[in-house]
Amino acid sequence: MLRLDSSAPGFAAAFDRLVRDRRESDDDVARDVAEIVEDVKHRGDAALAHYTARFDDHPLETEADWRVPAAQCREAYDALTPDLRAALELAAQRIRAFHEQQLPADRDYTDDEGVRLGSRWLPVDAAGLYVPGGRAAYPSSLLMNAIPAKVAGVARLAVVTPTPRGENNPLVLAAAHLAGVDEVWRIGGAQAVAALAHGTDRIAPVDVITGPGNAWVAEAKRQLFGVVGIDMVAGPSEILVIADGANDPGWIAADLLSQAEHDPAAQAILITDDHRLADQVADMVGVELAMLPTARTAKASWDDHGVIIVVRSLDEAPALANRLAAEHIELAIDDPDAMFAKIRHAGSVFLGRHTPEPIGDYVAGPNHVLPTGRRARFSSGLSVLDFMKRTSFIALDEAALRAIGPAAIALAEAEGLHAHARSIETRLDL
Amino acid sequence: MLRLDSSAPGFAAAFDRLVRDRRESDDDVARDVAEIVEDVKHRGDAALAHYTARFDDHPLETEADWRVPAAQCREAYDALTPDLRAALELAAQRIRAFHEQQLPADRDYTDDEGVRLGSRWLPVDAAGLYVPGGRAAYPSSLLMNAIPAKVAGVARLAVVTPTPRGENNPLVLAAAHLAGVDEVWRIGGAQAVAALAHGTDRIAPVDVITGPGNAWVAEAKRQLFGVVGIDMVAGPSEILVIADGANDPGWIAADLLSQAEHDPAAQAILITDDHRLADQVADMVGVELAMLPTARTAKASWDDHGVIIVVRSLDEAPALANRLAAEHIELAIDDPDAMFAKIRHAGSVFLGRHTPEPIGDYVAGPNHVLPTGRRARFSSGLSVLDFMKRTSFIALDEAALRAIGPAAIALAEAEGLHAHARSIETRLDL
Repeated sequence: MLRLDSSAPGFAAAFDRLVRDRRESDDDVARDVAEIVEDVKHRGDAALAHYTARFDDHPLETEADWRVPAAQCREAYDALTPDLRAALELAAQRIRAFHEQQLPADRDYTDDEGVRLGSRWLPVDAAGLYVPGGRAAYPSSLLMNAIPAKVAGVARLAVVTPTPRGENNPLVLAAAHLAGVDEVWRIGGAQAVAALAHGTDRIAPVDVITGPGNAWVAEAKRQLFGVVGIDMVAGPSEILVIADGANDPGWIAADLLSQAEHDPAAQAILITDDHRLADQVADMVGVELAMLPTARTAKASWDDHGVIIVVRSLDEAPALANRLAAEHIELAIDDPDAMFAKIRHAGSVFLGRHTPEPIGDYVAGPNHVLPTGRRARFSSGLSVLDFMKRTSFIALDEAALRAIGPAAIALAEAEGLHAHARSIETRLDL
Repeated sequence: MLRLDSSAPGFAAAFDRLVRDRRESDDDVARDVAEIVEDVKHRGDAALAHYTARFDDHPLETEADWRVPAAQCREAYDALTPDLRAALELAAQRIRAFHEQQLPADRDYTDDEGVRLGSRWLPVDAAGLYVPGGRAAYPSSLLMNAIPAKVAGVARLAVVTPTPRGENNPLVLAAAHLAGVDEVWRIGGAQAVAALAHGTDRIAPVDVITGPGNAWVAEAKRQLFGVVGIDMVAGPSEILVIADGANDPGWIAADLLSQAEHDPAAQAILITDDHRLADQVADMVGVELAMLPTARTAKASWDDHGVIIVVRSLDEAPALANRLAAEHIELAIDDPDAMFAKIRHAGSVFLGRHTPEPIGDYVAGPNHVLPTGRRARFSSGLSVLDFMKRTSFIALDEAALRAIGPAAIALAEAEGLHAHARSIETRLDL
């Protein structure tokens, strides 16, 4: 864990290094991924079988090796304990309610020149959802990806999820049933992303691929952007907690560890104006780690990437937060709205002492797929819009063309695009 | 020009080839671009000077070689003829009016469980706009990129535009002045995109890069997606005209050529149910080409990529259009709205016989930066949203956490994320 003090000499340089610190994939991943993508593009299902046997120790031979039947997803759902089923249903209902409000409005109007203008939103035809297997097999991520797609009106939802050594995750299958997923393919990694983008004999191509994954998955999405739409390039998770001295250090320690336990490359940062709280949180992280079943991952993240920054005043916090542009920000202070108004770059902000970040991972309603690695400067969490696209439209009659056409002719001629001018002139007998 | 008949044997296969036809960059471009991006990342301004001298024959030595001063943009604007100035101003005003309606609404509400939820939109801090030089130096493109960014509220707009052999394009500079651009850098190609993304000593990095460009520019944007936001991966322009027999063949020919004159790799396609119109349009393309100053480019595009498809009935057209997912679609028929309702994938649709596509390039108001290469299946034209990002927020008090917290704990435990559960438990004394 790194401890910084904003009043110490060298703070600016140390903070700068922190902002520039990269915890993501390197060139080797890019080269490996490019080879896998090319192979799946050309050899299709044979390449998928090859990589799935090699990376997941799961041979794709029978139909059931390739794909989980819908009946099995329903069975997994039916087999849930009542508590867990109720929890999944509450999560789904709240996620749906929040995302339904994101549905965009169409426009269609005629302006003063008699020009009819508008835009129309439609869902994509098919979406592919990446759901990690192994360490990060999260039914909550399935809901967070599938429900916005369903709300958007996407007709075909294809999930890909690796099943290492052939093991399905029943919770993921149950969530797939609850969310109305159409296909569940037992593949993962860059090869699964390539299959969704280019299609194979078995798997029809999709239009958009969303969902979290490891460095190979993120790199495959980046490389295939343009062939398909993607939600974002996702990296390891992050939390920034901004806390005054009035907090329970145990609460803050638990919040920091909730990100740290995701991934050894995850990052948890605390900014506080209280030296004592800083010390107490550091101590409580140790106490919590001693009890935590995920301590191995969480400790690696905290040791390597954890940061505590003590500032002279919390007035310094928004400027630091805006440089970090973190995925999650908790504002554990008395007047979180006043500070939120000064924070420009963040994936999601958790206001007040009773809003721990994990509540947003499951049941609050907003999406938990959020920009990482300072990308909140320019990108947003997953939303219904990621599964839709907008077509603009224009309609003129002869009078409207006569009103605004001459200006277009002047600009077309000035740009040397004479056929552009001609298409208007010929309609106006000019 | 390729002519297809939907009633002929082999049509399905021929149309399939047309849909799969790629007119875009190949692997060599990707490798070259990767080298240039790496070089600019490491050597900064020195690399920019190297590539700009080599590719644009423009040595970057004095301050004026690097950057066009604001005063020069204003002078270019003041020197416009009254007609051209009025045309640019009409275009700017209409583009602004259309895009102002795209500004998204924030949300902030408290639901029945007492959970406060919402989302807040803010502009990115800085946007980089690519404006092509040489063949495609279009002031209209500058307006189409800069005005949505301004409407979004972006504080810093940096234009990059190559000036081959040192020649500035006065119209582009005039448009930069009109649109309120902050910086105009005389660089282009992949090196300019890399400079905007990574920053150099002279050029501060931006958060989003938009704007059209050649294959190198498009590939550089693709490779740098994730370091910065980008609008889309743009390829050669396209038009699909759907026309019945009641059209003036000269009008349709001009419309087809208006895309063909952009680029030898551009594509113009006509779908009609009238053999006679098909013949007449083919003839009129020849007649128009004989008069057209841009005939060399337009003829290359029409010869290599132009297509006329004769269908038995225009009822076949929407299904074909949805497979092509063209950038521009003209519906030169009596009831364009009825057909538009069946078209799912298109960048922009031009309704009726008096709406030639070029009116949308300049003065209609909607953006002319649109998805190409079948990407209208999943992406949209440039908009104000490309220059903004959304932060979600969540606020619970103790009662609300008590209401929905236990479901989150159940899901966290089921996912094996114990610190997630702990952050809620500790606040509820569970």
